[in-house]
Amino acid sequence: MSKKVAVYRKEHFNAAHRLHNPLWDETTNDRVFGKCNNPHFHGHNYELVIKVTGEPDPATGYVMDMKLLSDIAQENVIERFDHKNLNEDTVEFKDRNPTAENIAIVIYDILREKIDMKFDLQVRLYETERNFVDYPA
Amino acid sequence: MSKKVAVYRKEHFNAAHRLHNPLWDETTNDRVFGKCNNPHFHGHNYELVIKVTGEPDPATGYVMDMKLLSDIAQENVIERFDHKNLNEDTVEFKDRNPTAENIAIVIYDILREKIDMKFDLQVRLYETERNFVDYPA
Amino acid sequence: MSKKVAVYRKEHFNAAHRLHNPLWDETTNDRVFGKCNNPHFHGHNYELVIKVTGEPDPATGYVMDMKLLSDIAQENVIERFDHKNLNEDTVEFKDRNPTAENIAIVIYDILREKIDMKFDLQVRLYETERNFVDYPA
Amino acid sequence: MSKKVAVYRKEHFNAAHRLHNPLWDETTNDRVFGKCNNPHFHGHNYELVIKVTGEPDPATGYVMDMKLLSDIAQENVIERFDHKNLNEDTVEFKDRNPTAENIAIVIYDILREKIDMKFDLQVRLYETERNFVDYPA
Amino acid sequence: MSKKVAVYRKEHFNAAHRLHNPLWDETTNDRVFGKCNNPHFHGHNYELVIKVTGEPDPATGYVMDMKLLSDIAQENVIERFDHKNLNEDTVEFKDRNPTAENIAIVIYDILREKIDMKFDLQVRLYETERNFVDYPA
Amino acid sequence: MSKKVAVYRKEHFNAAHRLHNPLWDETTNDRVFGKCNNPHFHGHNYELVIKVTGEPDPATGYVMDMKLLSDIAQENVIERFDHKNLNEDTVEFKDRNPTAENIAIVIYDILREKIDMKFDLQVRLYETERNFVDYPA
Repeated sequence: MSKKVAVYRKEHFNAAHRLHNPLWDETTNDRVFGKCNNPHFHGHNYELVIKVTGEPDPATGYVMDMKLLSDIAQENVIERFDHKNLNEDTVEFKDRNPTAENIAIVIYDILREKIDMKFDLQVRLYETERNFVDYPA
Repeated sequence: MSKKVAVYRKEHFNAAHRLHNPLWDETTNDRVFGKCNNPHFHGHNYELVIKVTGEPDPATGYVMDMKLLSDIAQENVIERFDHKNLNEDTVEFKDRNPTAENIAIVIYDILREKIDMKFDLQVRLYETERNFVDYPA
Repeated sequence: MSKKVAVYRKEHFNAAHRLHNPLWDETTNDRVFGKCNNPHFHGHNYELVIKVTGEPDPATGYVMDMKLLSDIAQENVIERFDHKNLNEDTVEFKDRNPTAENIAIVIYDILREKIDMKFDLQVRLYETERNFVDYPA
Repeated sequence: MSKKVAVYRKEHFNAAHRLHNPLWDETTNDRVFGKCNNPHFHGHNYELVIKVTGEPDPATGYVMDMKLLSDIAQENVIERFDHKNLNEDTVEFKDRNPTAENIAIVIYDILREKIDMKFDLQVRLYETERNFVDYPA
Repeated sequence: MSKKVAVYRKEHFNAAHRLHNPLWDETTNDRVFGKCNNPHFHGHNYELVIKVTGEPDPATGYVMDMKLLSDIAQENVIERFDHKNLNEDTVEFKDRNPTAENIAIVIYDILREKIDMKFDLQVRLYETERNFVDYPA
Repeated sequence: MSKKVAVYRKEHFNAAHRLHNPLWDETTNDRVFGKCNNPHFHGHNYELVIKVTGEPDPATGYVMDMKLLSDIAQENVIERFDHKNLNEDTVEFKDRNPTAENIAIVIYDILREKIDMKFDLQVRLYETERNFVDYPA
C-alpha cells in the first residue's frame, strides 16, 4: 500500500457576488438564479479547504509544511478575493459566473501553479454551511 | 483531467427509531443493540448531506441548481421522515432495521430515481455528530 | 469585583418525545403542536450545557472539578434520559409536556439537589442546533 | 426564584454591505474601515440568534412557539435582508452604517414590534464565526 | 433602555500545561488532578472569546474596531501563550495552576489594562469543546 | 453496484508534542518547525475520525457496531495517547516526529491489527479545526 497521506488546510474569505448570464434576458436570469441574481449583489463567508496528497518527507514527517500551504493560499487566493466583489473587482469572474463551482475551479487553477506537481490537489469551497463543492470531483 | 465538480447540499430531519431484529429473541436483541433496542424508541437529529457529481453547465456554472436539489430532498426525503417514527410511520422500515446504514441506503434509492442518471450520487447521514455513514462507499 | 468564574460542561443524550396536552382534543393538539404531536413520537440529539458559578478554590484553581460535574450529570441526567422515550419511559414527563423548556426545568431541579448551594446553577438545552433554551433565564 | 426560561431561535441570511461614513473623505474612510470600505461591497453569511425570555405557558410548556418565532423572523427580517445589498437595497441602512452593531439594533427594533411586550428580547448577530454582537448587551 | 451593544472576537492558541499543586504530595496531586497531573504535560487548542460592551460610536457604528481588538489580543495574549508550555514558558503560571479558570483570569487581567475602562470586559475560554469558562461570571 | 457503506466514528484526545529532528542542529529545527519546535512542548485537542468500509450485515443492518469500534479506539488509541506527551510518554514517537501525518499513520497501524481485514480502514486526524490529515489518502 502506498504511504500517501492527504493534508488539509482551511482558510476563509468574505466576498460579494451576483449570479448572472449576460447572454440571457432579465426574465431568464431571474427564473434561473432567483435571489442570487440581485443586481446589487449579496455575499458570503466562504470557507476554503485545500487538500494536498503525497508521501511524507522522512526528515520532517510533513507531506508539506501547513504554514507554507497557508502562506501560498493567503498570497494567491485570500488577498485576491477577500472583501472583494467577485464580479466587479476581479478579472477571473469578468466573464465567468461566480458560482461555487466556478470559484472552486478558479482557485484550483491558481493553486495548481504554485504547488509542486508531485502532489495531488483538490479544493473544497463552502458557500454556506449547507452548500459546498469539491473540485476536481 | 475531467472537469467534474461535486456539489453538496445539507438537509436535516428529526425522527424516532428503535433497532430490533424480529427474528431474534429479546435477550439477543438486547445484547446486540443495547440501549438502541428500547421498545419505546429514542431519537435523533439526522443531518443528511447529498453529493451530486457532474460537469458544470457552461450557461449557468451550476452542476445542478442547489435550490432544485434541496426541493427534491425536501419533497421526497424530509417530508417523508421528519418528525416521524421510522419503525412505525414508514413503509421503508417496516421490515428493515433503521440503522444509519440502512437509512442512508433507503435515502439513496429514493433520490437516485429523482436525479438525472448523468450525475453520480452519494449520501452521507449523520446520526450524531460522532456517528455517521456514507453510501455508496 | 467578585472573583467569580462560571464553568461549563457539555453532555449529550438522544431521546424520543411527543408534545401533547391530554386535556385537549386531537384537533387542538394538532393545531398547537403540529408535527411534534405525532402519536408515534419523533426524537432529538439533545445537547446539555451545565453552568456552575462560584469562586475558584485557591488550592486547585477549580471552581468545581469538571470530571465530578460530568459524573454528576451522567449519573443523574444522562443515564435517566439517554436512549429513552421521555413520555413513556420517565416519571418526570408522565404529566408534563416534554418541551425543551420543561426538560431544562426538570434537569435543573435534578442537578440543583446534587450541586453545592454555594454555587449558582443554570442549564442550557439544545433540542436542535437552531432551537435551544436556558433555565433559569 | 422566577420560573423564567429563555428560548432561542437561530436563522440565517446572506447579504452584501460596505462600511462607509459619507461625512468623511475617502482617506479617512479607508483608514477607519480598511477592506470593509471596498466601494464594490463584500458580503457575509449572517447568523441571527433571537432570544425571547418569559414564563412557559402551563398548557403548552412553551414560552413561545418556536415555529411562530421563526415565522416572525422569516417574514420581517430574513425576507427583508436575505440576498440583499444592505446599503443599496434597504431603507434601514440608507443613512446608517451597516456594521454588525447597527444591523443588530435594526433587527431588534423590527422584532420588538412583533413580539409581545411581556417577553424580554435580545438578538445576537454573527457576521463571521469570529465576530459577533449582542443587542441589547 | 441603554443603547449598549456587546461585541465579541474569537481568537485561538495551542499550548501545553499540567495541573499541579507544589504544596501537595504526589498522591494528592494524582487523586485531585488525575490525568491532568501528567508530569510530562498534555495540551489543548484553546479558543478565546473576548466580549467588550459599550455604546456604538455614532460616526463609525462600532463599539470598538474588531481589527483593533484582534490586534490587542494577538500582541498581548496569543503571542505570549501560543505554542507555549504554560507551566514552563510563562511567568504568569510559575506559581499559579494553569486551570481554565486561572488562564481566563490571567487573560482578563492582561486585556483589562489594554482596553478603555469605559467598556465592560469579559473573557470566555474553551479548553475543549465540552469544557469552558467565563470570567468574570 | 457494490452495497458497501462507509461508517465513521469520531473520538478525541488531548496531548502535548514538539516537532523536532534530532539529526539536525537547533537552527535548522527552528527554521523548519518554527514555534512547533518549542523544547517545552505545546499541545492540541486532537479529533480522530475512523472510517470503516464494508457491506452491512443483513441481520443487524450494521457494517460494524459503532459501540465496538468506539471501544477498540478507546482501548488501543485514546488510553494510549490521551493526556500524554507524545514525545516523552510513548514508544511510538520516541524516534518518529509526531506530526499529524505520522500520528495518523501510527493510529492506522494500531487499528488495522484490531479491525477485521474484510473491512477497509482510513483515519482522519484533526490537529486543529484548520489543519487535518487522512491516511491512507
